[in-house]
Amino acid sequence: MKAMVVGGAGFIGSHLCDALLAENNVVVCVDNFSLGTRGNIKHLLGRDDFILYEVDVSKETDLEAVFEKERPDYVFHMAANSDIQASASNPEVEYRNTYTTTFMILSCMRKYHVGKLFFASTSAVYGDKRDILLDENTPNLEPVSYYGAAKLGSEALISAFSYMNDIQALVFRFPNVIGPRLTHGVIFDFIHKLTQNPRQLEILGNGRQTKPYIYVTDLVRAILQFKDTEHTGVTLYNAGVSGATSVTTIADIICEEMDLKDVEYRYTGGESGWKGDVPRFSYCLNKIHAAGWKAEYTSDEAVCRTVRDNLAQRDR
Amino acid sequence: MKAMVVGGAGFIGSHLCDALLAENNVVVCVDNFSLGTRGNIKHLLGRDDFILYEVDVSKETDLEAVFEKERPDYVFHMAANSDIQASASNPEVEYRNTYTTTFMILSCMRKYHVGKLFFASTSAVYGDKRDILLDENTPNLEPVSYYGAAKLGSEALISAFSYMNDIQALVFRFPNVIGPRLTHGVIFDFIHKLTQNPRQLEILGNGRQTKPYIYVTDLVRAILQFKDTEHTGVTLYNAGVSGATSVTTIADIICEEMDLKDVEYRYTGGESGWKGDVPRFSYCLNKIHAAGWKAEYTSDEAVCRTVRDNLAQRDR
Repeated sequence: MKAMVVGGAGFIGSHLCDALLAENNVVVCVDNFSLGTRGNIKHLLGRDDFILYEVDVSKETDLEAVFEKERPDYVFHMAANSDIQASASNPEVEYRNTYTTTFMILSCMRKYHVGKLFFASTSAVYGDKRDILLDENTPNLEPVSYYGAAKLGSEALISAFSYMNDIQALVFRFPNVIGPRLTHGVIFDFIHKLTQNPRQLEILGNGRQTKPYIYVTDLVRAILQFKDTEHTGVTLYNAGVSGATSVTTIADIICEEMDLKDVEYRYTGGESGWKGDVPRFSYCLNKIHAAGWKAEYTSDEAVCRTVRDNLAQRDR
Repeated sequence: MKAMVVGGAGFIGSHLCDALLAENNVVVCVDNFSLGTRGNIKHLLGRDDFILYEVDVSKETDLEAVFEKERPDYVFHMAANSDIQASASNPEVEYRNTYTTTFMILSCMRKYHVGKLFFASTSAVYGDKRDILLDENTPNLEPVSYYGAAKLGSEALISAFSYMNDIQALVFRFPNVIGPRLTHGVIFDFIHKLTQNPRQLEILGNGRQTKPYIYVTDLVRAILQFKDTEHTGVTLYNAGVSGATSVTTIADIICEEMDLKDVEYRYTGGESGWKGDVPRFSYCLNKIHAAGWKAEYTSDEAVCRTVRDNLAQRDR
């Protein structure tokens, strides 16, 4: 099939392109290179089955031209501002890059009769429900970040477009996704800070923020596994991992992998790393496990592998 | 206080302007006159305590100029495409007039530190859950109309902006609102059709679509009653009425009020009037009743009064 991956040069998107190509699909990669990089897809450039468009998907006419030319069978919508902390001071980024991209993609799918969508949603749609085991039926979704709000708004759009245009939509709500090609977040930041100053590490919050981290190849495997399941309307899964990892544990793992001893941790204090951060949450994974998928790596293992990936990347 | 009513020349908005002025507030009415009309507010023009701006709220810079000049204490956001049936063929209307207006208003509130918001949401956020008694904690909101999707996306934005900027937000999810100055919908359409042809009436669907109709003055009274209740974050109410009225009953009431006998009803068939229409739903009103508000008119009474209002309006 011909698969359009919007945000295909991004962190998760580029791994998805790899996996779709490995399954002999033609991939139409669309990216504006705001967060995605050419480096993430450089190994794919020049292949006959990989077509790249540098397009800002929040502009409908530009995106329409790609749909008109390529007529994809399936759209994987991975485009978003993925840096929640950054958009806290500029919500317009989420309006444009996270919500408007969804609206424009759905409008093009409606116009060109594309019947299959995968959408990368997030645990941030739930808001701060730290004492509830979150499942797909949890009520009262109250996002506390602009990112979570734009993703929940996108889910709402998908619901209506799916109903009105008979689009089959598969939606995963991810927790933190980590692995090779990661561009931001706590692991990335800590390694950067410790490279600058190996004796001291500033940690936002009290370090007890504890979240599940999923390894990117586990997630991509889930997308591939469920992408062709026939269903009507929208099918939603919490796609997560066993366990959760605290920010202090992440610091400990990084120090160990970097072979640093006696690093002084300086906590900025408070339960959250920044306003809009949800300090801890737990996912009920019964639905996706019952459907036949389970992550290979636990949260701690995912963190450990990602630290090694990142250090190896830096050494290259 | 100084109250900004966005969509203040619209059907509900203009009644809210009347009520806020009657309580001695200064009203800043902002409208782009796409659905709102000068006729709805003509009795207010020229008053010192009524300030009118013709502004398209989906354009941030235009709206910012009004905030900069007027510095409101409270924003009542009533601007939206209110015609669900019309946007079914053009979802872009909802993106611009229903969602983007909310984003721009919240951005201005954030910038100008306005701490109080009322938002007009809708039963359409629930989607088609015809066999469930809908309360504020009903899970899995799955809108089937672009209108419902844009309103649910707006609620998500309000959740995040409220949390991030300490905005107190009061959100009502209305069913159909009717009364004087109504500009579209089944009552409006039937009267129009029967005026053209008093012998025959085409009815979309099977006529058994049955929904609660709330009279606009009841709704405005609820907004006024709760607007100053101190609370943190977002407070949400289903604001509805006892009972529900079928489309065939509406036709019967109109024929009786117009003194028409033996009108032939021609049904187009099907459970819904059009795709994206939710044919029936029921509201649990325990929360708003417990808080001390109850509609004066039942759904049937509201329909009957509205028919009389509309006929009187036509005679003028």
